[in-house]
Amino acid sequence: MREPGPPGVQNYYPPYELGQPITGIGVGVIIRSESPKYRTGDHVYGNLAYQAYSIHKGVPSLRVLPNVETLPWSVYTGMAGMAGQTAYIGWKLYSKAEKVVGDTVFVSTAAGPVGSAVVQLAKSQGLKVVASTGSDEKVEFVKSIGADIAFNYKTQSTAAILEGLGTGIDIYWDNVGGETLEIAINLLNAHGRIISCGSISQYNAGDTEKYGVKNLIYVMTKRLSMTGFLVFEHPDLIDEFYKEFPQKVASGEIKYTEQRYEGLELAGQAILDVQRGHNKAKAVIVVSNE
Amino acid sequence: MREPGPPGVQNYYPPYELGQPITGIGVGVIIRSESPKYRTGDHVYGNLAYQAYSIHKGVPSLRVLPNVETLPWSVYTGMAGMAGQTAYIGWKLYSKAEKVVGDTVFVSTAAGPVGSAVVQLAKSQGLKVVASTGSDEKVEFVKSIGADIAFNYKTQSTAAILEGLGTGIDIYWDNVGGETLEIAINLLNAHGRIISCGSISQYNAGDTEKYGVKNLIYVMTKRLSMTGFLVFEHPDLIDEFYKEFPQKVASGEIKYTEQRYEGLELAGQAILDVQRGHNKAKAVIVVSNE
Repeated sequence: MREPGPPGVQNYYPPYELGQPITGIGVGVIIRSESPKYRTGDHVYGNLAYQAYSIHKGVPSLRVLPNVETLPWSVYTGMAGMAGQTAYIGWKLYSKAEKVVGDTVFVSTAAGPVGSAVVQLAKSQGLKVVASTGSDEKVEFVKSIGADIAFNYKTQSTAAILEGLGTGIDIYWDNVGGETLEIAINLLNAHGRIISCGSISQYNAGDTEKYGVKNLIYVMTKRLSMTGFLVFEHPDLIDEFYKEFPQKVASGEIKYTEQRYEGLELAGQAILDVQRGHNKAKAVIVVSNE
Repeated sequence: MREPGPPGVQNYYPPYELGQPITGIGVGVIIRSESPKYRTGDHVYGNLAYQAYSIHKGVPSLRVLPNVETLPWSVYTGMAGMAGQTAYIGWKLYSKAEKVVGDTVFVSTAAGPVGSAVVQLAKSQGLKVVASTGSDEKVEFVKSIGADIAFNYKTQSTAAILEGLGTGIDIYWDNVGGETLEIAINLLNAHGRIISCGSISQYNAGDTEKYGVKNLIYVMTKRLSMTGFLVFEHPDLIDEFYKEFPQKVASGEIKYTEQRYEGLELAGQAILDVQRGHNKAKAVIVVSNE
């Protein structure tokens, strides 16, 4: 789950340390502070240890969440947190959708926290949204949040669905890589954009199992762009996100789902479910309620 | 040579018509004009038929070349024409080199008209230039125009050369696609840029021969961008090109080579040489001298 980065590239997060609690994006409450940045009772967001209490030395880079929207705090770990930020920032920077309303976007793993945010952002801008996900139950969820076409890629052919549109696609939000990426490249229109957000089909593929994408010539002939990004590298947009996005979640304009694991003792199960794709929504481990 | 475009995408040029002269980018002289855009004696640049004289009905989209630089007209078909434009526009729009002087760029087919322009543009901005080409003679030419490292990819390993840099690469100007693209992706640093200008290794590959690029996950993890573009889609930059670039060619700041085929009867040979990669420089067919 915390793979080493590619050669010469530092990983997004520091690796876990043996014998130490693992860490993840979480929301916590300041109990005592010696920093002027944090006051007792402040709710903070950032990389926190999986434990009931922890001590942060120096001035940690935790963000104080005013939560004027009075959202459940758990939402700040998902739709109003990194997942929402990823969708917001990737879409804002690379969809170029402002200029071409009327486009069609294809979103893979559309029922996940990032995918479902992208579906809703795209829909709110008037795009036609085609969404793939891995179960019929998730198909229903993705339709309920506005996807025009949603399908179970395990029982339906992605290529047939995209070809069946008759119009091609203009944007592919890629969470999976591999063959699905190749199919999307085949069906992208001129000036199509690929937003490379994830590559879950390739994470655990051995060297001989990795999928070879054979149609990259279309990047040139169709004048496509393909871009990867990292949410933390855009601090200005993260500030903007917090101004705009949580209130849309609070108002119901942006919908979300959560799968809550109540108690730290379920953390292992939660991680296993996510790694195996058995979770049904954004997995949240509730260490303690206030 | 004029393949059908990918599904749903119009090709760059109209296909050749059987029984009609083939066409290509050329420079001609206006002999008689009924359009106020063109005067007798004007030299014009654009898509011209392979013939000594031709009649253009309506108002053709030919550009009048003032040639205040008094370059040989043939240069306007190459370094001061589409090849130079392609390098100038692709580099300007997608290298992001203004912001990160000190970067390393890798250019494939660096002895060709586009590649050699890119080598010189990159060098003039202070980048380190690594260049691959297909013969020892071309290696010498590429070094003579400023490449820091030039190698014959047929006798040396591209992967070994790029790994040997020790620094990775920041920009890959891709003229070839396939395995070379995969190698470049492996060696690109975080935030690396791929400018997809050509894919010559894949043009004539059958479906079973096409190379599958297996490491596109790095687009995400290394936050790469890969972009294709078409020179004709940026008219403003083409105007800018004509203001800036031909004078650099005239002054010798940008160097070029040409392989001239004197006489229309050599057109077939010229095309064959280019398609087979037997040309040694920009191929120019001289239909007639003034």
